[in-house]
Amino acid sequence: MGKVSTGFSMSLDGFVAGPNEDFQHLFAWMMGGDTDYTIKIGDREQTLKLSAASIEMYDEAINTAGALVAGRRLYELTHGWGGHHPITAPVVVVTHRPAPEWVQEEWPVTFVTDGIESAIEQAQKIAGNKKVVIASTTIVQQCLNAGLLDEIHIDLVPVLLGEGVRLFEHLKVAPVQLDGPHVSIGKGVTHLTYSVKK
Amino acid sequence: MGKVSTGFSMSLDGFVAGPNEDFQHLFAWMMGGDTDYTIKIGDREQTLKLSAASIEMYDEAINTAGALVAGRRLYELTHGWGGHHPITAPVVVVTHRPAPEWVQEEWPVTFVTDGIESAIEQAQKIAGNKKVVIASTTIVQQCLNAGLLDEIHIDLVPVLLGEGVRLFEHLKVAPVQLDGPHVSIGKGVTHLTYSVKK
Repeated sequence: MGKVSTGFSMSLDGFVAGPNEDFQHLFAWMMGGDTDYTIKIGDREQTLKLSAASIEMYDEAINTAGALVAGRRLYELTHGWGGHHPITAPVVVVTHRPAPEWVQEEWPVTFVTDGIESAIEQAQKIAGNKKVVIASTTIVQQCLNAGLLDEIHIDLVPVLLGEGVRLFEHLKVAPVQLDGPHVSIGKGVTHLTYSVKK
Repeated sequence: MGKVSTGFSMSLDGFVAGPNEDFQHLFAWMMGGDTDYTIKIGDREQTLKLSAASIEMYDEAINTAGALVAGRRLYELTHGWGGHHPITAPVVVVTHRPAPEWVQEEWPVTFVTDGIESAIEQAQKIAGNKKVVIASTTIVQQCLNAGLLDEIHIDLVPVLLGEGVRLFEHLKVAPVQLDGPHVSIGKGVTHLTYSVKK
């Protein structure tokens, strides 16, 4: 069974979104490199500028992701990534309500209404041997507390944001020991990959 | 004039002290390496076990530190490091009250009662071309907000502590842009050195 993983751009002071959902500083490294790198969000293509280390990291993320798990809020905020998340994997949405009406039939998305364990289980079935990637902070926190998370990938950004949304909060099982990190140095970002000790 | 710097062991979730001032996990890397490294705290010697990368980092910290700035609380908690801080530099204490009675005459310590700017100024006079190193989180926060901090050194520890004392809080000047980091990979720790952009 594939690992349960997650990846976020995080400021040195721990924020994965700035005040008012601002990502300007957190995502600056995605336009700070030398090489064009085109991703697809829905029907729209977007060309990033990445360093060699960041391309390697991005390629690996896309090649190893078998399913993406998101909370309802993120899914609606991104309008379901227009049916195609940049990581090119099917999406599992953890929710209490039926699918929004705007979701199109051909979109690779599953709505799971019976809790986090069930959502991860279904995502792992979809992912096969590939990774299940958690996209929402609240789901990461639930997975950590339920002992379901295997890997944490952080794109550490050299900025202090002071306020916003923290990735690591509401931890009930602390301390959580990690192995690693594997370190890869991009331009304007330090890629760190940790394993969760079980 | 020497740089104003600071250095902390920090968990991936941003804590520089665990609950109840617990440092077990944050300082584990100091006993996790292969090579003996003896430091002096007051009259007492303590032998750490460090990796080569951590020894290099420690040596540089000791060789470049010209003065240490601490808050009153930390100074009393450590009993003034018995008159000799491991970083082997004179101490400047930011306080509103006179020196504690237990401070001995020959200890290299100055008590500054007229605010943070004055404390940094006096520490820089003591340090000459060497660095002024801030030892207390509250003083780091005040220096960041006053634009006085030049460098941030983080020993990033692979653990999530969930609660405790955060290094980065009460930031009033966000965002603070950083350059770097210089990265050095120790055993059980990732040494990261950032410059504060001015």
